[in-house]
Amino acid sequence: MKLIADGILVTPAGPVRGDLVLDGGSIADVVPGGVASRDGFDEVYDASGCYVYPGFIDAHTHMQCWTGMDWTADSFETGTRAAACGGTTTIVDYATQDRGTTMPDALAEWHRRADGTCTANYGFHMAIAEWNNETKADIPAMFDAGVTSFKTYFAYDHLRLPDDQMLDVLETIRPGGGILCVHCENGDLVDSLQRRVFDAGVTGPEGHPMSRPAICEAEAISRLMYLAELSGARVNVVHLSTALGLEAVEAAKARGVDVCVESCPQYLILDDTCFLEPDFQGAKYVMSPPPRKPHDRSVLQDALVDGSIDTLATDHCSFNLFGQKDRGVGDFRKIPNGGPGVEHRPALIQTLFADELGPEDFCRLMSENPARVFGMYPEKGRLAAGSDADVCVWDPSVAWTISVKNQHQAVDYTPYEGFEARGMPRYVFVNGELAAENGEPTGAKPGRYVPRHAGCEPRRVDDGPEVP
Amino acid sequence: MKLIADGILVTPAGPVRGDLVLDGGSIADVVPGGVASRDGFDEVYDASGCYVYPGFIDAHTHMQCWTGMDWTADSFETGTRAAACGGTTTIVDYATQDRGTTMPDALAEWHRRADGTCTANYGFHMAIAEWNNETKADIPAMFDAGVTSFKTYFAYDHLRLPDDQMLDVLETIRPGGGILCVHCENGDLVDSLQRRVFDAGVTGPEGHPMSRPAICEAEAISRLMYLAELSGARVNVVHLSTALGLEAVEAAKARGVDVCVESCPQYLILDDTCFLEPDFQGAKYVMSPPPRKPHDRSVLQDALVDGSIDTLATDHCSFNLFGQKDRGVGDFRKIPNGGPGVEHRPALIQTLFADELGPEDFCRLMSENPARVFGMYPEKGRLAAGSDADVCVWDPSVAWTISVKNQHQAVDYTPYEGFEARGMPRYVFVNGELAAENGEPTGAKPGRYVPRHAGCEPRRVDDGPEVP
Amino acid sequence: MKLIADGILVTPAGPVRGDLVLDGGSIADVVPGGVASRDGFDEVYDASGCYVYPGFIDAHTHMQCWTGMDWTADSFETGTRAAACGGTTTIVDYATQDRGTTMPDALAEWHRRADGTCTANYGFHMAIAEWNNETKADIPAMFDAGVTSFKTYFAYDHLRLPDDQMLDVLETIRPGGGILCVHCENGDLVDSLQRRVFDAGVTGPEGHPMSRPAICEAEAISRLMYLAELSGARVNVVHLSTALGLEAVEAAKARGVDVCVESCPQYLILDDTCFLEPDFQGAKYVMSPPPRKPHDRSVLQDALVDGSIDTLATDHCSFNLFGQKDRGVGDFRKIPNGGPGVEHRPALIQTLFADELGPEDFCRLMSENPARVFGMYPEKGRLAAGSDADVCVWDPSVAWTISVKNQHQAVDYTPYEGFEARGMPRYVFVNGELAAENGEPTGAKPGRYVPRHAGCEPRRVDDGPEVP
Amino acid sequence: MKLIADGILVTPAGPVRGDLVLDGGSIADVVPGGVASRDGFDEVYDASGCYVYPGFIDAHTHMQCWTGMDWTADSFETGTRAAACGGTTTIVDYATQDRGTTMPDALAEWHRRADGTCTANYGFHMAIAEWNNETKADIPAMFDAGVTSFKTYFAYDHLRLPDDQMLDVLETIRPGGGILCVHCENGDLVDSLQRRVFDAGVTGPEGHPMSRPAICEAEAISRLMYLAELSGARVNVVHLSTALGLEAVEAAKARGVDVCVESCPQYLILDDTCFLEPDFQGAKYVMSPPPRKPHDRSVLQDALVDGSIDTLATDHCSFNLFGQKDRGVGDFRKIPNGGPGVEHRPALIQTLFADELGPEDFCRLMSENPARVFGMYPEKGRLAAGSDADVCVWDPSVAWTISVKNQHQAVDYTPYEGFEARGMPRYVFVNGELAAENGEPTGAKPGRYVPRHAGCEPRRVDDGPEVP
Repeated sequence: MKLIADGILVTPAGPVRGDLVLDGGSIADVVPGGVASRDGFDEVYDASGCYVYPGFIDAHTHMQCWTGMDWTADSFETGTRAAACGGTTTIVDYATQDRGTTMPDALAEWHRRADGTCTANYGFHMAIAEWNNETKADIPAMFDAGVTSFKTYFAYDHLRLPDDQMLDVLETIRPGGGILCVHCENGDLVDSLQRRVFDAGVTGPEGHPMSRPAICEAEAISRLMYLAELSGARVNVVHLSTALGLEAVEAAKARGVDVCVESCPQYLILDDTCFLEPDFQGAKYVMSPPPRKPHDRSVLQDALVDGSIDTLATDHCSFNLFGQKDRGVGDFRKIPNGGPGVEHRPALIQTLFADELGPEDFCRLMSENPARVFGMYPEKGRLAAGSDADVCVWDPSVAWTISVKNQHQAVDYTPYEGFEARGMPRYVFVNGELAAENGEPTGAKPGRYVPRHAGCEPRRVDDGPEVP
Repeated sequence: MKLIADGILVTPAGPVRGDLVLDGGSIADVVPGGVASRDGFDEVYDASGCYVYPGFIDAHTHMQCWTGMDWTADSFETGTRAAACGGTTTIVDYATQDRGTTMPDALAEWHRRADGTCTANYGFHMAIAEWNNETKADIPAMFDAGVTSFKTYFAYDHLRLPDDQMLDVLETIRPGGGILCVHCENGDLVDSLQRRVFDAGVTGPEGHPMSRPAICEAEAISRLMYLAELSGARVNVVHLSTALGLEAVEAAKARGVDVCVESCPQYLILDDTCFLEPDFQGAKYVMSPPPRKPHDRSVLQDALVDGSIDTLATDHCSFNLFGQKDRGVGDFRKIPNGGPGVEHRPALIQTLFADELGPEDFCRLMSENPARVFGMYPEKGRLAAGSDADVCVWDPSVAWTISVKNQHQAVDYTPYEGFEARGMPRYVFVNGELAAENGEPTGAKPGRYVPRHAGCEPRRVDDGPEVP
Repeated sequence: MKLIADGILVTPAGPVRGDLVLDGGSIADVVPGGVASRDGFDEVYDASGCYVYPGFIDAHTHMQCWTGMDWTADSFETGTRAAACGGTTTIVDYATQDRGTTMPDALAEWHRRADGTCTANYGFHMAIAEWNNETKADIPAMFDAGVTSFKTYFAYDHLRLPDDQMLDVLETIRPGGGILCVHCENGDLVDSLQRRVFDAGVTGPEGHPMSRPAICEAEAISRLMYLAELSGARVNVVHLSTALGLEAVEAAKARGVDVCVESCPQYLILDDTCFLEPDFQGAKYVMSPPPRKPHDRSVLQDALVDGSIDTLATDHCSFNLFGQKDRGVGDFRKIPNGGPGVEHRPALIQTLFADELGPEDFCRLMSENPARVFGMYPEKGRLAAGSDADVCVWDPSVAWTISVKNQHQAVDYTPYEGFEARGMPRYVFVNGELAAENGEPTGAKPGRYVPRHAGCEPRRVDDGPEVP
Repeated sequence: MKLIADGILVTPAGPVRGDLVLDGGSIADVVPGGVASRDGFDEVYDASGCYVYPGFIDAHTHMQCWTGMDWTADSFETGTRAAACGGTTTIVDYATQDRGTTMPDALAEWHRRADGTCTANYGFHMAIAEWNNETKADIPAMFDAGVTSFKTYFAYDHLRLPDDQMLDVLETIRPGGGILCVHCENGDLVDSLQRRVFDAGVTGPEGHPMSRPAICEAEAISRLMYLAELSGARVNVVHLSTALGLEAVEAAKARGVDVCVESCPQYLILDDTCFLEPDFQGAKYVMSPPPRKPHDRSVLQDALVDGSIDTLATDHCSFNLFGQKDRGVGDFRKIPNGGPGVEHRPALIQTLFADELGPEDFCRLMSENPARVFGMYPEKGRLAAGSDADVCVWDPSVAWTISVKNQHQAVDYTPYEGFEARGMPRYVFVNGELAAENGEPTGAKPGRYVPRHAGCEPRRVDDGPEVP
């Protein structure tokens, strides 16, 4: 039995001063006011001055992933270790059924990559790049294997599905309570605009945002909203980046469409002037969608605060600047798309929104809602007896600077270099084992695969705590 | 000189009692209160008890058109004669550059079909079914020939353009002040749903609306709005049929998109229970989009009254029930799409909206706005000295019944059989010549080609008359 | 003691079956279920099948008024008799301080005209045509005399005040709880447009609406809203006629401006095609503002139903067609402005809105709200013990036709000739005396002057009955 | 040929790293990535670390202007020199046809004042202080002379036009595509409130804002919106200062009124506590409208960011505190109205909105939109081959302090004394000639008169870049 003593416990009913008792892989007790006696506990962890959160969940990562040209810089081993150092105890990674393969084969392959190597827990979404009667027949097996969320793309020639197939995917996964995550960019337009921008002589990283105007995202979101409406299925708009896209989501919500919205720190922090950094440094920010205009950033910040954004993930997909991203010198279209973030999300968000969000909000956005939306609640995402002993003890008083020099992500840069962070996890437990301490890994690898049930749980909005 | 005496002249400044003087092909004078003396006039037409309108314009017709399987039932000769009998003095017909042909060739062909045969005037839009550097180079020649409006499709395999080409069309026609009319249905979804509906055993006409849910229209409209926004060009949503589609238009207007909206009598009068008429009679209403739900009809009626709909056309595209439409017995997908209407639009609308719309509203929707939007104002669409002598003297007191038995459309049915109309054109003048009287043709064929300028004129909304 | 037996009593708490007891000039009792015994009553009136309303109030009339060229056709004697025949037991008439006179003198003059001649009760508003330190000093005397509502004009050269004086009026009457009624038309624009329309050759009655577009009203309303906001005073927009004007009112309400809205039957029933009636008949409808577009009518009808309009009056100001209105043959500007209506308002509204409004709504619009807004509540506008014995027993089953032939208004036409009415007052009591029966006067003249207190009472909207 | 090397070029398609080539008075080339070789260029300017903008345009100035009592402190010579030092390459100044003069005479006079003396380019609006058939007849000559924008006033006795004349101005300039700029304050109210404030004993500068409440502006804007709606003409609300005024604009936009909005730095930076500075220093801020409440400022800042404000100008109209403004000691009404700003606008705005606006936003607000709205686009307002070589090379890293001590405006104060600015123009080119360097003039006077075409170009909103 472990005792996490004297912290502010962020429970479903609100923050409470007290102790948390862990027994093996589970939370044994939440003790407001603290236990009567600390005798009999094997270990006692001092949480004074700290918030005790259910471990944070990053529901959008790409670890150890082959993109046709490159492997991402982070493996499941390095990626989940970095996650745990930052306070994240579970990731949900995107396995992909590439064309010509099957979903069961893809899932087996992703297990091979991850199993036995992970510091944090991991689940899998399944991205569908080919849809026909055979692939369709594999859906029940996915549910049985704990994969209840899927993904499709409106962009990228080797991934995108036509609208009618996307509709069929939605109708197929709906009865079991599945959710479809969708990459919303109009591939037709992006491909054409990339050619135009490049032919106009813009070859550097700034060509990337120039060829992906906000409308490319908003149009695809709008299209998804109609498909979701027609099918009745729940969808998740991943990595929302634009004000115009949010407008399309809000209009659909008003019509009753069942849509969740995910955004990422890069869209809340950066803007597209980053691409103009000299010496090809702008390539660090080449991800899709790209960071947007200051106005978009401002609208998304407001949306985070007002509850319009349901979950916050990272789309962690790291490539080294040297040796990988620099393949795109002279042609921005060849820069591998993606950037790191799994380690820094909690610190970034808690620093930036220290005045606007409270501890329950951070919990909702980064733990409870991802657990609810993706079928892990109440095992995860909840600080309560019986839930898994994934815990992040957060010390809000620690001031430090984000840098490639102190990060654990296995990549040669961070988009947030020099960011003055406020707050760091003092202790991070995964399945009851101490995985990281003061931002450094302990070396333990307690991470396990998380089979997920159907995500029928409604997500929470910011309208106050659950009644105890 | 002809005198149209003692009517209520529907002028841009409002309705005025008085006389109208025609001199050759032009309006010579608008005389409030009436001329001092009727001496010296060659002919005097009694307009007492009548409204005198600038001739009505139907900006959406398909006459003498080959669809791959059929010719439409109406030729330019029969179609424009029927138009004139109903009070319509100008049509704007859709010429089509089929794949493998050029726009100049298509325009020449349409002239061959129409020239010399027409009772009413006619202009041409140009539908673009193929877009590449060669077709693009023909756009200036179209403007020179008086074709300043174009059309593209989001549906139909042999007509539809991908999004990036549609964007390029918009950017190409914008600088000259062109307008793009778009058939808004998601072809991917429609094709797939048609298969599903048919495979589910629904083979009759009711399969038609079933395979084209409102979302197919709304999604395509929404996509068009984004393309228009990106390009800055003006677009015209043709044959709007759904409340959901209107919602997408209104959202775009609020963002500043320059969009005009056209609807047609069928969407204001019929609903999709019509497809259930026995003995394959439902095939009469097979047109795309189909008549919709009563709720859609009601929302569109309100939109017509509140000014959200800019123009009212017919999409006249007639096929006989016997020998043409009946080819689709056993498979609704083989029913030729389209229906007649060019003759009855004024009577239908003035009867239905007698209490909600005034004479200026009828003028705005069916004459002034089509002229403004499509570059014919102020030559047409305006009752004023110097404008063309296209005039409809409308007697609101005549009660009659619409029927295939009394119509002049060369087709074996009308969707409005038995409709109790109120109002009929007493006299219809085309270019100063009497073309129809009491709903019957005089035999004259004064119709001429109408070259159009760029439609930079703003359309009017329903906020009262122009100041004299 | 009089007994009104077996009716549906429209009380502040809702409609109740029962009897009403009158004692002298007051209501002695409201008896749900009816009195135990009818013994001891001097008179018993059968109200079975009828609604028993507090007498209707018409808060906007112009009786026996000199306009510079004409006396109105109706005197106080004929006008209040007609009112009572229709069910109206109180009018509030506009006394006018013409330039060069004083308010006390004007009030004395209006008393001379009315006192001793009236079948219905009467109060006076005071219209202010000249504003300076002397006139300003007379305001307290007006309050003392029971005149707590005032009027100013934005139009008419001999009446209008500049904006700064209007502001001063508002600030002067506010402390005592006064309300300012305002004629909202931009006089500058109207004068100029009248010249332009006339110079363009439009001399008939249709020139009247043509020279007063909706914007003239809406602009003046908007200006009034700003003045009211600056002053903090309560204002009453009289005879609202346009959708655009209503929009300005609603925007102001959302800002917290204290504004009441009055409309009249003519704007809910007529539209501006009435001006086109042949043989100068259009002159019958020449009033300011004029009846508007069908769209305006439709918006105002909705506003009446949804509670956006607070009170319904008539702006009764009658002139004979022959001998008065016909002075404007050849120049619409010379047609005396105004029309009759005081007799027919209850029948018109209850017929037209029989399906949309219930008895409490009619009571609210035509009795309770005028009483509240103009400082007569709860003496008037309420069916309760202690209130004045002004009562209208309304039989909704009587079908009849409005016509100049059966009216009591002393004018040679009615704008509603031929209107098929449904409902008629069976008995009308004024101060406890039977003033009319079955639409015919009894010959009694029980009407008295109604001194009014400051109208601080809030008006009611249509959100249900007062709790008993 | 001049080379501006290694900057971030703010092009219509977005910011791009590269070089800009000037040839004579025109931009010869935009070279993403930079030219292959710098050989053959006459001069090379280092733009590293800088944004390269199309020169900024200040579309609202009053140079060398007689107000009846004073000449403004700045002449065209000093004013355009100061402008260029701050990065502004073109001003549009208000010529005024005073009563009793003609527009051609006024234009000739303004040319006399400006021609040959200017460092920056200059165009002229024409303010109309008298309107009759003679002045009306001069409008076409103004268009021919490149004056396509006009101005009228709702305030100031010697300038204001009544509403009907304002309507006529609008209808007269509309057909040619003119735009009317309007000073929106209700003169009636202002005059009256000034008297009241002064008579109440408030004689110091704080009496200025006290006598011009927000409603004076909002009412006049609202009135203008109605006049614009009636006429169909495009209008520009100059120097918007209040939240309430913005609300009137937004309501009008929703009705389809074609309205542009201009604001100025003073309304985004100052608030009305400035008038309370001791020792009559408050007089420095006496301009009309005055700086407003913090709430107004905050709403306008948001409107600037969200695109509701189209252009940002200065209303530069400088008077010395000593010898001019101090004539109003003891009576705020005698303080000359106006303040300087033409030099500091770019630095003020780029400092204040560094986090909320990106380079394209600054370009849109201070260069592209003024060029579009006032008929100078694409010659000006666009960094592209063929456009005029008006260029501002902006170094965002320079920190400096705004002060009367370092300014070039020929006036003895600045309202922004002590403002810590971030960013300064490294080089400013006017018609290809270097006019200023590091905020100091070079002595060149390359400024030329800019005849303007009709401003039919739509202005841009903040929805992302033009597609390349």
